Amino acid sequence: MVWQNNLQCNKGYRKNLLKISDLTVNDIENIIILANRYTNEKNSSVLQGKTIINLFFENSTRTLASFEIAAKSLGANVLTLPIQSSSINKGEDLKDMIKTLDAMESNFMIIRHQNSGIVSDLAKYVKHSVINAGDGQNEHPTQALADYLVIKNHKKRINGLKVVICGDILHSRVARSNIRLLSMLGAKISLIAPTTLVCKHFSEIASIHYSLSEGINDADVIMLLRLQKERMNHGYFIPSTKEYFHLYGLDSKKILHAKPDVIIMHPGPVNRGTEISSDITDKIILQQASSGIAVRKAIFHYYSGAFLM
Amino acid sequence: MVWQNNLQCNKGYRKNLLKISDLTVNDIENIIILANRYTNEKNSSVLQGKTIINLFFENSTRTLASFEIAAKSLGANVLTLPIQSSSINKGEDLKDMIKTLDAMESNFMIIRHQNSGIVSDLAKYVKHSVINAGDGQNEHPTQALADYLVIKNHKKRINGLKVVICGDILHSRVARSNIRLLSMLGAKISLIAPTTLVCKHFSEIASIHYSLSEGINDADVIMLLRLQKERMNHGYFIPSTKEYFHLYGLDSKKILHAKPDVIIMHPGPVNRGTEISSDITDKIILQQASSGIAVRKAIFHYYSGAFLM
Amino acid sequence: MVWQNNLQCNKGYRKNLLKISDLTVNDIENIIILANRYTNEKNSSVLQGKTIINLFFENSTRTLASFEIAAKSLGANVLTLPIQSSSINKGEDLKDMIKTLDAMESNFMIIRHQNSGIVSDLAKYVKHSVINAGDGQNEHPTQALADYLVIKNHKKRINGLKVVICGDILHSRVARSNIRLLSMLGAKISLIAPTTLVCKHFSEIASIHYSLSEGINDADVIMLLRLQKERMNHGYFIPSTKEYFHLYGLDSKKILHAKPDVIIMHPGPVNRGTEISSDITDKIILQQASSGIAVRKAIFHYYSGAFLM
Repeated sequence: MVWQNNLQCNKGYRKNLLKISDLTVNDIENIIILANRYTNEKNSSVLQGKTIINLFFENSTRTLASFEIAAKSLGANVLTLPIQSSSINKGEDLKDMIKTLDAMESNFMIIRHQNSGIVSDLAKYVKHSVINAGDGQNEHPTQALADYLVIKNHKKRINGLKVVICGDILHSRVARSNIRLLSMLGAKISLIAPTTLVCKHFSEIASIHYSLSEGINDADVIMLLRLQKERMNHGYFIPSTKEYFHLYGLDSKKILHAKPDVIIMHPGPVNRGTEISSDITDKIILQQASSGIAVRKAIFHYYSGAFLM
Repeated sequence: MVWQNNLQCNKGYRKNLLKISDLTVNDIENIIILANRYTNEKNSSVLQGKTIINLFFENSTRTLASFEIAAKSLGANVLTLPIQSSSINKGEDLKDMIKTLDAMESNFMIIRHQNSGIVSDLAKYVKHSVINAGDGQNEHPTQALADYLVIKNHKKRINGLKVVICGDILHSRVARSNIRLLSMLGAKISLIAPTTLVCKHFSEIASIHYSLSEGINDADVIMLLRLQKERMNHGYFIPSTKEYFHLYGLDSKKILHAKPDVIIMHPGPVNRGTEISSDITDKIILQQASSGIAVRKAIFHYYSGAFLM
Repeated sequence: MVWQNNLQCNKGYRKNLLKISDLTVNDIENIIILANRYTNEKNSSVLQGKTIINLFFENSTRTLASFEIAAKSLGANVLTLPIQSSSINKGEDLKDMIKTLDAMESNFMIIRHQNSGIVSDLAKYVKHSVINAGDGQNEHPTQALADYLVIKNHKKRINGLKVVICGDILHSRVARSNIRLLSMLGAKISLIAPTTLVCKHFSEIASIHYSLSEGINDADVIMLLRLQKERMNHGYFIPSTKEYFHLYGLDSKKILHAKPDVIIMHPGPVNRGTEISSDITDKIILQQASSGIAVRKAIFHYYSGAFLM
């Protein structure tokens, strides 16, 4: 592969991907270039002889499978540790386990954990690369990159685009990473959520609205979050399906206020009639599993320092 | 490998292996030819760069290990998802999970599930190949092919042979797939079981008997099913070990009514003194783990379309 | 690789590594030579096309990860079976499962089990190689070899060295394997433990002392065992942390009685202030994860018979 040529030059190479602010605009665009190449040429030997350890302390099928497929397609040796039966149960604490695994020639550690911020904390004890696969309500940077890949391929640009993110923003680490990534690239972000489900401090980098019809004007991209009903019984906000749909659901009438070539993104699975009316569900671009794999291959490639040689 | 030559020509290639009726006689014989070759030459690169996902919703060691070894020996990237900790628990339903995994470049999905018929149902949502690794009491086609490989290699033919299947036929998906496969190839099937443990509608393709001594005459092959004692407390039939052995157990006296060169097959582990008397256990051909692996390699090879090129 | 040259000649090749007494001095030194080479050259294709099955019936992260990384780096197909969801639960017993897996072309079976002696028992039913990854309070031979690798690389020799092992020796399979291995190689072993936490029969191959200050004189190597507090509530011995540290803890005063170039080994994680005082923790050589991997690669290489060709 002589993919190096088109990539913009980079001074060093990155060690960790813990949060969006670990990346420069250059890094992001390089990852997207690599991801587009991996969309066509699926396999490489960039990670031959390298070891990837997946440490998923929280339930996952989609993200775990995506990282596993990406790493194996690049030739890596992949270990997905059975955390339930791990020696964490023998009184070793997490930090000690991480240090031990780091000493085992593991070139990348992919960590998902239910606690916000813990992945950055653990990364301090790791000599090799750590990638955040989602920590609590904090960040999920690889998913944001996958979403940006979809936008880039549909819109060809991001600077100046209006991106509307609608739903339970407070609990969504994907939303949080997307807000940071897309605003950094020059997009204008509109957040639409019930007052209890959005952080006020986002007003520094985004406009905040409390109903979809308020914020949808001239949207280029609409990102609908999945209504996580299983979280709704924590006393934050329990709208009826009808109320929610009235204020935050997308229908054929509200969408008329967006740009004609607006794209609608949704992480799937869709709750029809709640987040979006049935007559326009076919307009949705599901956040494609294939984009997720291509981006994760690109991240492995980029972080392995391979393209700098 | 230039294995293609001896294979009978096939018009297209198969997508799914959900049940025996998905196969033609041609398909079956091609798979057996490939399996015999994989018995000698254990590795190939037919699945290099391909991804296999194992989705086992039901306990399994033997079948899961067999599929994993087969796929890895052909060079595949294999994912065995931890279903217990999967995002099924986050409210995503099975169909959505299957669609997501299908979008992740997975070339084969191997599914085992406790519900009869569900694998065929899920396969409708999958663009790539689905292989049924056992669904409830319905079918277990790859195991039937492995059993047929053993018979073929011992008897050289199947057409016109008398095959006796004895035991709890009602609950056995292996029996059900074997009955369909072997009768399709021209074998005469005798089913021997307590009245409560056999389906009457099998009388269309098999003769049914209620004791082993009734049905064993001139048998070429005797397949003993394992007495699944853990299922026997469901009120179907609770014979004493002595009663069961008297009517359905194979001993040195009953076996005299079979052909002199009869072969006895058993899935293992054997309950000595229940299904068979101790003095003839050494005559059993355990359904060999190695046949299972060879057949599964052959199925992957055949379904990957590789030999058609 | 032409690594064969420096290795001392061996008449046959080993099948199982169940306990230290399965090895000759020759075997041990050959494994150490190979391990040192694998420290520099991390990958090989010695296990290409071979299948390794990990059967861990007891919690483990460290040892499981170490075997997985070692096997994959040598090109093996590795299966780590989910024992919790295995068909052991369907009434198949352990022996039958082992026999089935053995028939599946598995070249190595790596077994950890909570019952002392069970691995040797199971190995009788396996045609291929079995490696004991820790059985109850019995043996953990691969860890002892990893510890010896560390000593050898620091001290260049073992014959005549004084090795002090201090802590809960009764419950430690690592201690048990180390005592056997190091005394076989000519080391003088001193065991230091509360009377209830050491076996009298070790007096045949080691001297036994009941406080660290008694036994530490002229030590070349001090191995501190981790105080397994979770086992201490079984009625054996419940010292206060202060009492324990007074009698068995290593501090800057006691260490003066050891040789000036003494090395201190600890399996990690360290309980500071219990097993060792904080001011000398930096003198500890943590039993390095990397030594564990190098030794396990060497064991696979040696037992695969590859270097005899």
